[in-house]
Amino acid sequence: MGSFAGHALPGSFFLFVGLWWVIKSSLWHLTRRNKNTGSTRLPSRASQRRLEIIENSVIVFFSIVGILAEQFAANGPKLQLYDVSENHWKDMANWQHSTMYMFFGLAGAVSLIVHTTAAAPLPLDRLMLCLAFFNEGFLFLYHLHGRALLDIAVHQLLLYAVFGQALIAFLEVFYRGNVILELLRSALTMVQGSWFWQIGFVLYPPSGPKWDLTDHSSVMFVVMCFSWHLMFALVFTGLIYGAICSVVRARLKRTPPMEMGLLSKPRERDQESEDEVF
Amino acid sequence: MGSFAGHALPGSFFLFVGLWWVIKSSLWHLTRRNKNTGSTRLPSRASQRRLEIIENSVIVFFSIVGILAEQFAANGPKLQLYDVSENHWKDMANWQHSTMYMFFGLAGAVSLIVHTTAAAPLPLDRLMLCLAFFNEGFLFLYHLHGRALLDIAVHQLLLYAVFGQALIAFLEVFYRGNVILELLRSALTMVQGSWFWQIGFVLYPPSGPKWDLTDHSSVMFVVMCFSWHLMFALVFTGLIYGAICSVVRARLKRTPPMEMGLLSKPRERDQESEDEVF
Amino acid sequence: MGSFAGHALPGSFFLFVGLWWVIKSSLWHLTRRNKNTGSTRLPSRASQRRLEIIENSVIVFFSIVGILAEQFAANGPKLQLYDVSENHWKDMANWQHSTMYMFFGLAGAVSLIVHTTAAAPLPLDRLMLCLAFFNEGFLFLYHLHGRALLDIAVHQLLLYAVFGQALIAFLEVFYRGNVILELLRSALTMVQGSWFWQIGFVLYPPSGPKWDLTDHSSVMFVVMCFSWHLMFALVFTGLIYGAICSVVRARLKRTPPMEMGLLSKPRERDQESEDEVF
Amino acid sequence: MGSFAGHALPGSFFLFVGLWWVIKSSLWHLTRRNKNTGSTRLPSRASQRRLEIIENSVIVFFSIVGILAEQFAANGPKLQLYDVSENHWKDMANWQHSTMYMFFGLAGAVSLIVHTTAAAPLPLDRLMLCLAFFNEGFLFLYHLHGRALLDIAVHQLLLYAVFGQALIAFLEVFYRGNVILELLRSALTMVQGSWFWQIGFVLYPPSGPKWDLTDHSSVMFVVMCFSWHLMFALVFTGLIYGAICSVVRARLKRTPPMEMGLLSKPRERDQESEDEVF
Repeated sequence: MGSFAGHALPGSFFLFVGLWWVIKSSLWHLTRRNKNTGSTRLPSRASQRRLEIIENSVIVFFSIVGILAEQFAANGPKLQLYDVSENHWKDMANWQHSTMYMFFGLAGAVSLIVHTTAAAPLPLDRLMLCLAFFNEGFLFLYHLHGRALLDIAVHQLLLYAVFGQALIAFLEVFYRGNVILELLRSALTMVQGSWFWQIGFVLYPPSGPKWDLTDHSSVMFVVMCFSWHLMFALVFTGLIYGAICSVVRARLKRTPPMEMGLLSKPRERDQESEDEVF
Repeated sequence: MGSFAGHALPGSFFLFVGLWWVIKSSLWHLTRRNKNTGSTRLPSRASQRRLEIIENSVIVFFSIVGILAEQFAANGPKLQLYDVSENHWKDMANWQHSTMYMFFGLAGAVSLIVHTTAAAPLPLDRLMLCLAFFNEGFLFLYHLHGRALLDIAVHQLLLYAVFGQALIAFLEVFYRGNVILELLRSALTMVQGSWFWQIGFVLYPPSGPKWDLTDHSSVMFVVMCFSWHLMFALVFTGLIYGAICSVVRARLKRTPPMEMGLLSKPRERDQESEDEVF
Repeated sequence: MGSFAGHALPGSFFLFVGLWWVIKSSLWHLTRRNKNTGSTRLPSRASQRRLEIIENSVIVFFSIVGILAEQFAANGPKLQLYDVSENHWKDMANWQHSTMYMFFGLAGAVSLIVHTTAAAPLPLDRLMLCLAFFNEGFLFLYHLHGRALLDIAVHQLLLYAVFGQALIAFLEVFYRGNVILELLRSALTMVQGSWFWQIGFVLYPPSGPKWDLTDHSSVMFVVMCFSWHLMFALVFTGLIYGAICSVVRARLKRTPPMEMGLLSKPRERDQESEDEVF
Repeated sequence: MGSFAGHALPGSFFLFVGLWWVIKSSLWHLTRRNKNTGSTRLPSRASQRRLEIIENSVIVFFSIVGILAEQFAANGPKLQLYDVSENHWKDMANWQHSTMYMFFGLAGAVSLIVHTTAAAPLPLDRLMLCLAFFNEGFLFLYHLHGRALLDIAVHQLLLYAVFGQALIAFLEVFYRGNVILELLRSALTMVQGSWFWQIGFVLYPPSGPKWDLTDHSSVMFVVMCFSWHLMFALVFTGLIYGAICSVVRARLKRTPPMEMGLLSKPRERDQESEDEVF
């Protein structure tokens, strides 16, 4: 994947998924709180389930696309693992990326099963997400042998986001439906996405001079830059949450005042929700 | 244990135990959920307890066999710890393996006491399992001094599975009966088992050329290979769970329809279960 | 910031904040316990909210002051990030300190939103505090390249307090209103503050001889000294808690004896409190 | 403290404390379970509180003795911290040991306050215990500079027990009265005690030849030996628990059969207990 596009593509994908998760979590949390009043105008449980199915189908689809791209693009290994003639393993980087996509595809497929049948326990989708992120971080950990100082630094910083996502997803197995954890995971997903773009700009600048990959002051800059990505992702998450909050409230205002009294117990548990029981 | 058989034997044992735990956890979780309807056709609490006793007797038995094999096999230390004539410690590897078996034997013995008497607190079986896995990982950590690059790598990867099992077993002390944790622990046990086989094939290939133990691209391959073992274990766990799910449902369909209404509260807590209270 | 004042200023700020948090947590915990009796004489929910607003306004204000000081003080970068003429990054240390202040400012701003509107989920203030501390520690981690032995040691010790605060704040997302966690976080904040002063005295002694920055016995001394800072912070926290406890009790004694019977259920949950629900 | 006695003394103290904690936890857990029947013959809440006061007074007393011994024994620093004439820090090891004792003394003193007054929150005693153990491990971490291979190894192994105790004590802040955690903490305390003796025998053998402190096979032996200490501590803990269990049951058998029916709800929560609420 050693190219600008090879980092921009997964980056865009994670940015998009993160953005979508922020919208989904905010919408779901805010409508759940205000369920009693305006349920007819707000998304119901059936539409929530439909969203989950669409989301996970998209994830499975892009995982397969990713695997095919890694395997059959210009310099891909074309499903060959060992080069017998030269007696060494072929294109380990491509194979490792394929493995990452496979885990995300598996997580999506399990989520599809969880949300279409009643057979599997509900928190399984979060556990598979946790394992997919953990596996990504695990493979990146062993990916950095013999690279330049700055190259190692930018990939190590990525691991903060990746293992952070894995940790939050694991906590969600036990604290399902906790909006704080969901928003934090979404923000970290956006950080991962934007950081992939940043890696592309640092290692393969599309224009301008190359970076000096052995300069220590550049390492200090990218570390700080990672902080900024996190901050922008958090602020952006907050803005979306706020915008959705206003929209939901505006809709509710149009409900007859008689029903408004029910708003006084905003944190009441919604028994119909899919995400309640563990 | 430096031989193919020396890795294949514990590997087979862990594979078998992992497989058994998947079946037990799935069966128990699915019958607990459907308890109200078909309890007469599904395993009762007494049969569950009987299974635990058989399982732990087998674990204790194989632990003793393992200790004896390590001590009295061809090159074993035969319970001698210090070679006075040559002034150094004897066969540290065999002694460390014996110690690992002893901890698993102790965990099995404590489980037997927990499930046959009412004296010991129930979560003690999980804590002892946690300590047995932790001890295994702890001894392996100090086992790798002065080995070749690839040899160290394959054993370090094993530690992910071993410490993962210890962590999950510790969480089960607090979240007992959580099917997600039980299945994940079972899957990690299968990973440990299949990875022992993999180590055997890498370090002592029964046929074909030897691996180059200092080649870095081989390290990248085995890291990815560990991911694949985890993925296969997860998929396999899912398939068994699904199969048992179908069998349990098929049995329940034969119950008179009148009782079927009770299925509508599937996640209700089963007061009779041994695993409820902490 | 390489100066005595540059460490004494943030040190004083953290000392002050830690002290304030001890008072706030103690007062709030003790009045909550004794709510039923003397509520008219003790701070109400409205005054609690007012305090939160004042506190967070102060935090936001000082964060902005800190950023401006770092940027526009004598040798600051004046918002310039890259020195094109000399082809390197400018004043990375100042920029990193500015970033730390920005995160604390963001945490304060989010807290303001949480406590003035009903839109945001309550535990968000603790999560942002956790991220602000985590970010501080994260930037310090990469701050120490190429410094002297003792310089590295005193900054690494600071990380125990900083990451400790981040961990406790994260736990508070789940265990909100737990007085033990709140007091521990406050004590660690005071440790951070007093340790900043200590760093100032070690690296830039205002009087007397310079320290030998490469002496290993000095490292052993500062490690122990950090323990003492922690101990003094804990004892000091305890003394303040005890003092407030006496004051609250003295006030309650003046209530008519008839109501005193209600004191018998001291740990009862106070339904009106802002901090209850998650 | 570089002597056999200097390790045997704290070792004996920790062995004694661990043993006492096993007895206390077992007794308290078993009588709590059987409270309804034989409460008149079993320790009451008042006697539990009295035990806590005695226990913590003893801890405070021995901490003061430890500090005085470290300071005023033959080669102690006699409260002098800096040797102005030779321009270096005096007896850092003794001062660090004094600091450890001070933290344990503080933990004991806070426990005394918690159990004699109603002012302090109950879980504070566990938090202070956690901090005392953490501080011990923290100081040992920086204690090992420039020592021989085996000397470092035996002290590092000690850290597993010490940080393990700190972790368990921290968990007890949230899961107070959990007998599994209490027994594990007690067992780890015994491991710490017996390992101090082991360190004494390895580094300062009272008789026989000296150990070769640079031999790697000795490191492998002491690692395994640490496993054995843990195993013996666990088995010993189990035996004491079992013995107390028999005694408590024998006492209960002498109660009139009419009351025995109440035994059927053995895990019922005991409202009167000090350890219930948080």
